[in-house]
Amino acid sequence: MTIPSPIGWTPGHAVRILDQTLLPDEERYLELETVDAVAEAIRTLRVRGAPLIGIAAAMGVTLSIRQGAPSLQAIQAASATLGATRPTAVNLRWALARMERRAAAALAGGEDLAAAMRAEADAIWQEDRAMCVRIGAAGAALIGGDAIVLTHCNAGALATGGMGTALAPVYTLHEAGRRVSVVADETRPLFQGSRLTAWELGRAGVPVTVIADGMAASRLRRGDVSCVIVGADRIAANGDVANKIGTYGVALAARAHGVPFYVAAPTSTIDRATPDGARIPIEERSADEVTGWRGHQVAPAGARVWNPAFDVTPAELVTAIITDRGVFAPKDAAGAA
Amino acid sequence: MTIPSPIGWTPGHAVRILDQTLLPDEERYLELETVDAVAEAIRTLRVRGAPLIGIAAAMGVTLSIRQGAPSLQAIQAASATLGATRPTAVNLRWALARMERRAAAALAGGEDLAAAMRAEADAIWQEDRAMCVRIGAAGAALIGGDAIVLTHCNAGALATGGMGTALAPVYTLHEAGRRVSVVADETRPLFQGSRLTAWELGRAGVPVTVIADGMAASRLRRGDVSCVIVGADRIAANGDVANKIGTYGVALAARAHGVPFYVAAPTSTIDRATPDGARIPIEERSADEVTGWRGHQVAPAGARVWNPAFDVTPAELVTAIITDRGVFAPKDAAGAA
Repeated sequence: MTIPSPIGWTPGHAVRILDQTLLPDEERYLELETVDAVAEAIRTLRVRGAPLIGIAAAMGVTLSIRQGAPSLQAIQAASATLGATRPTAVNLRWALARMERRAAAALAGGEDLAAAMRAEADAIWQEDRAMCVRIGAAGAALIGGDAIVLTHCNAGALATGGMGTALAPVYTLHEAGRRVSVVADETRPLFQGSRLTAWELGRAGVPVTVIADGMAASRLRRGDVSCVIVGADRIAANGDVANKIGTYGVALAARAHGVPFYVAAPTSTIDRATPDGARIPIEERSADEVTGWRGHQVAPAGARVWNPAFDVTPAELVTAIITDRGVFAPKDAAGAA
Repeated sequence: MTIPSPIGWTPGHAVRILDQTLLPDEERYLELETVDAVAEAIRTLRVRGAPLIGIAAAMGVTLSIRQGAPSLQAIQAASATLGATRPTAVNLRWALARMERRAAAALAGGEDLAAAMRAEADAIWQEDRAMCVRIGAAGAALIGGDAIVLTHCNAGALATGGMGTALAPVYTLHEAGRRVSVVADETRPLFQGSRLTAWELGRAGVPVTVIADGMAASRLRRGDVSCVIVGADRIAANGDVANKIGTYGVALAARAHGVPFYVAAPTSTIDRATPDGARIPIEERSADEVTGWRGHQVAPAGARVWNPAFDVTPAELVTAIITDRGVFAPKDAAGAA
């Protein structure tokens, strides 16, 4: 089973990313040499997925040292630039805060700042990879065997430093020889489901069927879907889940048909400081994501658009949250995880 | 208020259609001279919308007379060709059966077949136009004033011979000086909402906001949508409604948020011979509608796809059916309408 990796270091210690905006047409890797280049890559979704954004930002911080004299100010400036790219994902701020703390400690202890930052970014990445494995094990045990899994957006290898969050149980079951297949919502407006989820599952040899988002309710009604598994960009203290726009409608349809609705996410996605979903800031993106696709207009010029990037699924629609520390009822995740 | 008309006769009695596959980029009209050309236009969705398909098919039948010696056999052959284009819309078969009956009566009565067929197609068209006006009046009375209406797909002027079905109440309220605006689901895979609904409402001066289908549940949760109104391709005797794929998910979200969910359709859409939604044949269309858009791949080559063109919304999720004969509870529509 080959799962593509969307991030790495170049031999010269620059950040190497797979440009996810070009998939599935083209598999192109970019070498990012500056903090601004990493920030641009995050803002324009060349790198996306809450865990992967955290890793990329941590790696991006290290580039500030290549660019000038090592200092806490430079680290903090890099962190501020990277932190301003996307408002919803909590992992981004979590990873940056961790890099800043480690920088301060390294400087206080007289350590080499460049080496400490590189090691911390690597640690964040490695921990993410291990986190994916643990989510995969916990989710696979929960599902327990052959399954058809419906997912929305991409919370797979392309969204993390490892085998993904929502797709980790799928890969784990597939490796264990179970018959597991995926129904992938295409996930408008940016097609992360059809472009990314279908691409990485295909590479890994997992059967996948792509549907338009509006087909999910009918598919759930058909009765052959074992469960829904999605990722999360932020989980509030009460268990409300912010995830890619469209997730909430899938959760309503899953509830209507008695299909378990699971959220798979690292515990770093749980934001104890946010009491409920209503307080999660929801990024609104530009109209042209909805009105056109690669230069082709699908709406009249000047059409008004509402384009929130995320929605909030209330905790009561979530059957369980699958984390790297086990499976929890949504209301218990913040306390137990 | 100018509402574009998608159908008409040429001076030479050919069928003139607006090629809806090219909108919103291009407003191109085609002159169809043969039955096969009309059948192709219906099959490829150049002409679409359940009522408009019926009108186009009736007009298409008249072309068989231009092509050969007038006979009942030729009419029936044309009807068979046109009837085989789309399986779900009941208006198509209704209009064709009516043309066949009229042809038989004309021949039995020694009438001029060409004139009778042209008159019957015109009658179907004019009745459709009047039907739209009545649906508009009934729907406007039901809504009663200023409103934000969420709709899915296109059940407007471009789907009928007149001012539409789902959009007829909107146009009626707009003409009456009410502040009415529309939230239009883009309606993947073929973007009838963003391409067609947004285009015709813009032409008519009605404010419209386009959203991706996955945003509808969040928009309904926001609390500013007055009601959902959609069209129908077929209504079963028990009130179950087949409409564009994605409608069912919108109905579930409307129910979750207490937003009225109305279906607007001519009584010819009610199929008393079909007891419930499970017996409505659902057309499955080709994978490439989902995997690409105008030559751009959005899914990996060879990706498996499930692409049903319609779904069924159970009667219990439908607040009321707005018809040309008044507003009915779904279970009463077949009997009362």
